[in-house]
Amino acid sequence: MALPLAVTLGEPAGIGGDIVLKAWLEHRNELPPFYLIGDPDHLASLARHLRWQVPVCPINAPARAPAVFTTALPVFPIGRIIHARPGSPDPADAPAILGAIQIGVRDVRSGRAAALVTNPIHKESLYRAGFHHPGHTEYLAELAEADEAPIMMLVCPGLRVVPVTIHVALRQAIESLSTAGIVHAGRVTDSALRQDFGLTAPVLAVAGLNPHAGEAGSLGREEIEIVEPAIAELRATGIDARGPLSPDTMFHAEARGGYDAALCMYHDQALIPLKAIDFLGGVNVTLGLPFVRTSPDHGTAFAIAGRGIARPDSLIAALRLAAEMAARRTAGS
Amino acid sequence: MALPLAVTLGEPAGIGGDIVLKAWLEHRNELPPFYLIGDPDHLASLARHLRWQVPVCPINAPARAPAVFTTALPVFPIGRIIHARPGSPDPADAPAILGAIQIGVRDVRSGRAAALVTNPIHKESLYRAGFHHPGHTEYLAELAEADEAPIMMLVCPGLRVVPVTIHVALRQAIESLSTAGIVHAGRVTDSALRQDFGLTAPVLAVAGLNPHAGEAGSLGREEIEIVEPAIAELRATGIDARGPLSPDTMFHAEARGGYDAALCMYHDQALIPLKAIDFLGGVNVTLGLPFVRTSPDHGTAFAIAGRGIARPDSLIAALRLAAEMAARRTAGS
Repeated sequence: MALPLAVTLGEPAGIGGDIVLKAWLEHRNELPPFYLIGDPDHLASLARHLRWQVPVCPINAPARAPAVFTTALPVFPIGRIIHARPGSPDPADAPAILGAIQIGVRDVRSGRAAALVTNPIHKESLYRAGFHHPGHTEYLAELAEADEAPIMMLVCPGLRVVPVTIHVALRQAIESLSTAGIVHAGRVTDSALRQDFGLTAPVLAVAGLNPHAGEAGSLGREEIEIVEPAIAELRATGIDARGPLSPDTMFHAEARGGYDAALCMYHDQALIPLKAIDFLGGVNVTLGLPFVRTSPDHGTAFAIAGRGIARPDSLIAALRLAAEMAARRTAGS
Repeated sequence: MALPLAVTLGEPAGIGGDIVLKAWLEHRNELPPFYLIGDPDHLASLARHLRWQVPVCPINAPARAPAVFTTALPVFPIGRIIHARPGSPDPADAPAILGAIQIGVRDVRSGRAAALVTNPIHKESLYRAGFHHPGHTEYLAELAEADEAPIMMLVCPGLRVVPVTIHVALRQAIESLSTAGIVHAGRVTDSALRQDFGLTAPVLAVAGLNPHAGEAGSLGREEIEIVEPAIAELRATGIDARGPLSPDTMFHAEARGGYDAALCMYHDQALIPLKAIDFLGGVNVTLGLPFVRTSPDHGTAFAIAGRGIARPDSLIAALRLAAEMAARRTAGS
């Protein structure tokens, strides 16, 4: 039987519990088997509160999950109780939240889980408890002992985008843009498209930074000084990188058909088109880790947590994509 | 009979002739009557070359256009022959190109045409002939003796976007972003939504500059220092401006339903979502002129000029929108 997916608790005051319960309740027959790393009592209590018929089954090993999955939600206990109420994070939960991530990484690295799917965390609550990483992904990279910086890819049907710079002010994104950064993102992306997405000849579309990709220098020189040398360097290593392309004309349906992933120069250049096209079903994928990791492309949504109205679309897409990627990676290794 | 729309020649080496002929040939029965300001021989020759049955009828006054329109394409002669071949602009055509724009402005200002629809020009050819304006819109503003800077709006079904900064490098767009600029764009947009789009209580969605609209200052301070004061100033004058909104979550279908126009901080923040949603049918509208002016949201497309394959969708949308806006402005005045 195939290995199950490991799903982390995430911030227990957020919608993680809602969407895990709903995904299992309404879609378990179409989903790859998974287990939640969390507190069985917390999940059972949430299910009762929502009046959802979701039996929760504690398991003592990931291998138990597939057999349990058809009749109950398998939960691997983290051995800690949850303090938060929906919408109100509690710093006392930080060890449980981080512990779930540690267990998840242990399970995928030791071959007990096929891939890791993480529920959203709330960094501010963790910072107050001493967490010092800029984000979820950097924490995973440390736990995974990854030897190079991981790369974020956002995926929806028909579009994959990779922001080369991420969670910084736009001004800083421009300052920090570098040929080396674009080349690193291009290499990791090309490799992932082959290994995890099953493409034999991936095409990377590289966006310019400026309007109309700078119009030959009249609207900015970053294309000439930073982006073009990166494309040349990628092409010299056999990677089919093309551009720099005008950012406003590369994301319509016909243009999207011409490439397998878009390398974007800043957060919103990647996220605006992705979320305009598919707001609910986007998946966040971390490339460059020694295991497959996906996560829903939304936050903790405290305002609607515990009410059973959060849509599980993105978690479901994240589960499916993680299983597909893991199967390809296993087949290829 | 309603006034006709005045359509300018644009760059004769571009696709302007192709799309005007095709719009008339295939859609004349559904379109508001218009006349082209150009060279009748140039149009007739292009129609023959394309083997399209488009009779060209020179007219000596815009008032003749509506009666002619059902059976022939009315052309108001500019009194100059065209030198360019498709795909090869000729600086000798600059007086004809600029003359057509001047006649168009004269016709709308004197009440002989309902609105002005301009075909794309190629600035570089005009610069070589002594043209010194940064663009088409600035030239129109000068001809119109407009007392404030015009504002560009892009329109497609379900979305209107207004870039507050336009054709400058992204770095300069950030440098030049100002509270006064956002307030000016907001005022002109609000006024146009009422006067030309027939909305009685328009809602403006104001985007942030930075990812997640700056996350309360942790990802940039422009929202706090520049955008929020502009929103406060607009609201103090009774304009329903809302934001700053996270740029990546304001353009999906459901979010778009919550506002009538999005004020965007830079070119691609506005153009990426618009062109991702509707690549072919977007219309460029100039707000703040003493007349209605629209234009297709594409360039001269030299590579396909004179071949009859350019799509007239954007010109058709520009003609329809111009007629609607002009009718509302007339009804309201």
